[in-house]
Amino acid sequence: MSISVAVAGASGYAGGELLRLLSTHPELNVMTVTAFSNAGQRLIDVQPHLRSLAHLELQPTEPSVLAGHDVVFFALPHGRSGALTAELGPDILVVDCGADHRLTSEADWATFYGGDYFGAWDYGLPELLHSSGGTQRQVLAGSKRIAVPGCNVTAITLALAPGIRSSLIDAEDIVAVLAVGPSGAGKSLSVNLLASEMLGSASAYAVGGTHRHTPEIAQNLKVAGANAVSVSFTPVLVPMSRGILATSTAKLADGVTAAQVREAWETAYQDEPFVHLLPEGAFPRTADTVGANTALIGLAIDEAARRVVVVSAIDNLVKGTAGAAIQSTNIALGLDETLGLALDGVAP
Amino acid sequence: MSISVAVAGASGYAGGELLRLLSTHPELNVMTVTAFSNAGQRLIDVQPHLRSLAHLELQPTEPSVLAGHDVVFFALPHGRSGALTAELGPDILVVDCGADHRLTSEADWATFYGGDYFGAWDYGLPELLHSSGGTQRQVLAGSKRIAVPGCNVTAITLALAPGIRSSLIDAEDIVAVLAVGPSGAGKSLSVNLLASEMLGSASAYAVGGTHRHTPEIAQNLKVAGANAVSVSFTPVLVPMSRGILATSTAKLADGVTAAQVREAWETAYQDEPFVHLLPEGAFPRTADTVGANTALIGLAIDEAARRVVVVSAIDNLVKGTAGAAIQSTNIALGLDETLGLALDGVAP
Amino acid sequence: MSISVAVAGASGYAGGELLRLLSTHPELNVMTVTAFSNAGQRLIDVQPHLRSLAHLELQPTEPSVLAGHDVVFFALPHGRSGALTAELGPDILVVDCGADHRLTSEADWATFYGGDYFGAWDYGLPELLHSSGGTQRQVLAGSKRIAVPGCNVTAITLALAPGIRSSLIDAEDIVAVLAVGPSGAGKSLSVNLLASEMLGSASAYAVGGTHRHTPEIAQNLKVAGANAVSVSFTPVLVPMSRGILATSTAKLADGVTAAQVREAWETAYQDEPFVHLLPEGAFPRTADTVGANTALIGLAIDEAARRVVVVSAIDNLVKGTAGAAIQSTNIALGLDETLGLALDGVAP
Amino acid sequence: MSISVAVAGASGYAGGELLRLLSTHPELNVMTVTAFSNAGQRLIDVQPHLRSLAHLELQPTEPSVLAGHDVVFFALPHGRSGALTAELGPDILVVDCGADHRLTSEADWATFYGGDYFGAWDYGLPELLHSSGGTQRQVLAGSKRIAVPGCNVTAITLALAPGIRSSLIDAEDIVAVLAVGPSGAGKSLSVNLLASEMLGSASAYAVGGTHRHTPEIAQNLKVAGANAVSVSFTPVLVPMSRGILATSTAKLADGVTAAQVREAWETAYQDEPFVHLLPEGAFPRTADTVGANTALIGLAIDEAARRVVVVSAIDNLVKGTAGAAIQSTNIALGLDETLGLALDGVAP
Repeated sequence: MSISVAVAGASGYAGGELLRLLSTHPELNVMTVTAFSNAGQRLIDVQPHLRSLAHLELQPTEPSVLAGHDVVFFALPHGRSGALTAELGPDILVVDCGADHRLTSEADWATFYGGDYFGAWDYGLPELLHSSGGTQRQVLAGSKRIAVPGCNVTAITLALAPGIRSSLIDAEDIVAVLAVGPSGAGKSLSVNLLASEMLGSASAYAVGGTHRHTPEIAQNLKVAGANAVSVSFTPVLVPMSRGILATSTAKLADGVTAAQVREAWETAYQDEPFVHLLPEGAFPRTADTVGANTALIGLAIDEAARRVVVVSAIDNLVKGTAGAAIQSTNIALGLDETLGLALDGVAP
Repeated sequence: MSISVAVAGASGYAGGELLRLLSTHPELNVMTVTAFSNAGQRLIDVQPHLRSLAHLELQPTEPSVLAGHDVVFFALPHGRSGALTAELGPDILVVDCGADHRLTSEADWATFYGGDYFGAWDYGLPELLHSSGGTQRQVLAGSKRIAVPGCNVTAITLALAPGIRSSLIDAEDIVAVLAVGPSGAGKSLSVNLLASEMLGSASAYAVGGTHRHTPEIAQNLKVAGANAVSVSFTPVLVPMSRGILATSTAKLADGVTAAQVREAWETAYQDEPFVHLLPEGAFPRTADTVGANTALIGLAIDEAARRVVVVSAIDNLVKGTAGAAIQSTNIALGLDETLGLALDGVAP
Repeated sequence: MSISVAVAGASGYAGGELLRLLSTHPELNVMTVTAFSNAGQRLIDVQPHLRSLAHLELQPTEPSVLAGHDVVFFALPHGRSGALTAELGPDILVVDCGADHRLTSEADWATFYGGDYFGAWDYGLPELLHSSGGTQRQVLAGSKRIAVPGCNVTAITLALAPGIRSSLIDAEDIVAVLAVGPSGAGKSLSVNLLASEMLGSASAYAVGGTHRHTPEIAQNLKVAGANAVSVSFTPVLVPMSRGILATSTAKLADGVTAAQVREAWETAYQDEPFVHLLPEGAFPRTADTVGANTALIGLAIDEAARRVVVVSAIDNLVKGTAGAAIQSTNIALGLDETLGLALDGVAP
Repeated sequence: MSISVAVAGASGYAGGELLRLLSTHPELNVMTVTAFSNAGQRLIDVQPHLRSLAHLELQPTEPSVLAGHDVVFFALPHGRSGALTAELGPDILVVDCGADHRLTSEADWATFYGGDYFGAWDYGLPELLHSSGGTQRQVLAGSKRIAVPGCNVTAITLALAPGIRSSLIDAEDIVAVLAVGPSGAGKSLSVNLLASEMLGSASAYAVGGTHRHTPEIAQNLKVAGANAVSVSFTPVLVPMSRGILATSTAKLADGVTAAQVREAWETAYQDEPFVHLLPEGAFPRTADTVGANTALIGLAIDEAARRVVVVSAIDNLVKGTAGAAIQSTNIALGLDETLGLALDGVAP
């Protein structure tokens, strides 16, 4: 089996990470890479870390260039996917790393993004717990249109879904604060993303519930069983290039014990290849997930505050973006879900 | 007026920062520096950044060495202050940067620290709001025994006290997550504080309400007017040497408006020299406080979650430790409160 | 005495650092700050760390705005100083932090910068050794036009000038490699200065003798006594916001001993307030100079290679730019040379 | 073919990286991991990033534990390899990542290391050019005892060997300055390796020709054709966990042209899988090699100084240690040289 792949938006960070992972994938073969302003350049001049793909040249991001592949990955700015997809055939598997097809509510789309709404695709978080008992994996099998989750959303959803599904925590008083690296913001040229500004400094942004990932978190937790969701979510930029460390807390339901909590999380993830619950008293470092598709979860009960505190670590470019895309693609194509994806982080 | 000063524990980070600030103080004169294992060495060999104090030699940390000064600063491991102070006269102003005399509740001391309890001293957070309407400044005037607050505690207390005093927020569902640099942990030789471990990584510790600063936060918010306090507090180590960025959130009381909230915080801090509320939509960076005694506060209302989200930034070694010590000393001695303290951060 | 000051280019890093230092200067009073595109904004919105100057508003960078002050500092892009200065009176002390007036050779200017040449001003490195035995201080006393050195140039010149003046080292086979932080490049929006690109990475630039600071190094070493100079100089960007650590090496002249070398450096700097030779076996860290006007120098002899290896550390924005400007201004105005300048670094 | 592997010293950084790479190697199977003080612990508790090896337990580092494997990797402190190897059979391939068997000169060993000398093994730098025209690969084929090079040595040797072999540069006036991350120093608990000390700071160590890697550099360049070697080598610690950026310079021989230089380097490395010469004007970043066995080389001629300046980037733990070990093992065993080794760096 030889599966041909195109990556649109190959000059950015998400595109670069897709290519880094795909270059070791035994079944998916990158044939085409495209860009907007960088079209015409050699990939290696724009992504100097991708030595194994030094033979590729960036082509323009146009339907005619993308058509003819078995799988097309989009790593594009928001709003670009809809029109391009319309010109690709229904048999091509299209995997969008942007936000365009994540939200099932057009109203949420209008509030948090705006512009034309192109509808929700199959949501690419295989481990997402369904209240029914299964996972999102079932939805992804055979899919032809996949929307990769937002990176912050993945960190929070994986942290809290087990408690939601098992009704151990209150979905209406969730607080999550995330330490995030700047690569999630892409190669944007803005002063606050300069190394001089970020080195030795931490700062919050999108404070007060304005972050676009907010409705997507609620959407996921409802899939896991919540009736109503209230989440106060604040991202904090810290000086590490990659990584998300999410501290997510929720009120415990009355009478819930620490043992019940640990059992719920253990049950949820015991068979997951990429999501690992750490032993009691252990909490993850983002370094342990760098370059890997792994999510690490540490769990504690704050008895005085009657809250569960869940610390989850992922690499925002892997489990948070490119790794999730490839994992979902593997499932959609009926391949071994773990192909092309590392478990071990590049640490120290 | 010439006021003589001794700094005990001069070889650590807190001691070093005290000395850096004191070296520019126009009224306080450092005569003596002491250490435990480093006694006998030149200060400059242990603190190579303190060029202006290159003439000083580290002496042993003994009462006979410390006595005879007008002011003695302790930057010692927890548990050392009580015995030393017993041998210093009542006229010496003793300022303890450790935890020994912060907690008014012996039960809290026993739970979170343990060992002999030596009683609470005057609490060295001048801007701490009293429910009565005044501030902690009144308590500090003329004091001879001052306990400097914990650095995390200062960041959270300053963030939330205005809402507590004005009854706009609920003290029983507070969540605070802090991005903190490793210098708060001192020069401890432990693997998790190695540069190889921390560079490019974030990690949480003392998760689940076990951090020793927890009861001190509650103590302060009660001074500000809370009846009962529940705070879920998680510190996250991030790769910056100094700085705390605290994201503190609390439920809004029913019917409270954004305008009321902003007014309460503005009123609380409008005359403070070192605590500054940023304009609407602006949030602080820790870099803006490096080396300065400044606390910067950004404020937002998350209407959907009905929470106030307060982001506060301080330098843990200055406003969080050594600056607070000197500010409190200035007040205790009747000096201008701002002497020897910078307002402007060393950025970028 | 009240000396009025204007800072042109106040929205950049060099301008910001000038203002941070000037705000604590007892004799110089900042009356006016100017900018190009940011004119009309409040200074505090562009430089949020400068709380003590929150009352200032950025005005346009025009001669009419700058005239009428006793001292005008330029922190402008190269090529802007000449035309502006032509419209300021000869009695105003003008201090240029840019490159426009550093080079005495118009040919070097044409080769490394290009554009109109406006002539050299008095060179603002007070400690520069003259072959005659004095220092640059004598030239600066009473000066009305001062050109502040390039930051890399200062680090290398201070490292090697003692050996040149005493004829202990060969000026024709100098190699210098500098670890530098990105703030030296200013607030430029270029991809390679993004935090995502720099965090966890080191890279060289201007490799092969193309860096514009090259002729300025040679110029200085000739002032110190060299007949001919050959310097291979490579800057390496590393992930720290501030700081230069220069490793400068030169061949020892025949028969020179380690004792002679140490004595030459000791003699050169023993009375300098801001340049400090470390004891044998000790080498500086850039952290020890952060925020300070201090240059630290460590010295070793590599007997096998018959080279002196000099490691020098400065803060590129202080001793490398703004501190040098103020130190030179103090001298020009007949003030105490150390006013407004810290000796102690902000470490850790 | 199933090849069994033991890794001795699995709790340190070099051991951890060996295991990370080996876990993806299709032919080498890690059966046993050993440690000294950590023996008895689960590997995952000491190396939390190695999720794929969570089933392994650390055993004591004893000959009886190591014997019975086809390949044994040593990632031990210096001086441990000799005695252990004496008890392993001659058919076991032993690969030592320490310094014990690198130096062919017992006198150099005595000068730079001291203690018992156990003789040189086959040197594990496959790309090392031999003056005869071949490479070190020929020596490694079929080898049973391999000494992995020092990480700094690899960076400098690869940078300069092409010029030495082709007699284009002078081996007697080499200067190399390296920006290095702290992981090369291992998990040592020393104050100068603490994150608080290193964040935001650069510092040099082993200045003046005292670094233990110095004789090994000379040894390699002699293999490449130098008669006599003089190298002044200074490592500079910078705040990135991994990576070496070496700036190596040497005098050009009389009459040598830029074109000759470029051709020599191109010829040397055009067929190498892991060593890549960048195009004219391009220079490497360490980030582009993180996690990969790749060495990137940028080349410039400084005509004024008549020096070649070579900038080389490697990951000190991969091409500098564990990757070199596995690459050499592949060659020794007759496997494809690139098995288990990534070409693409984990960037940004």
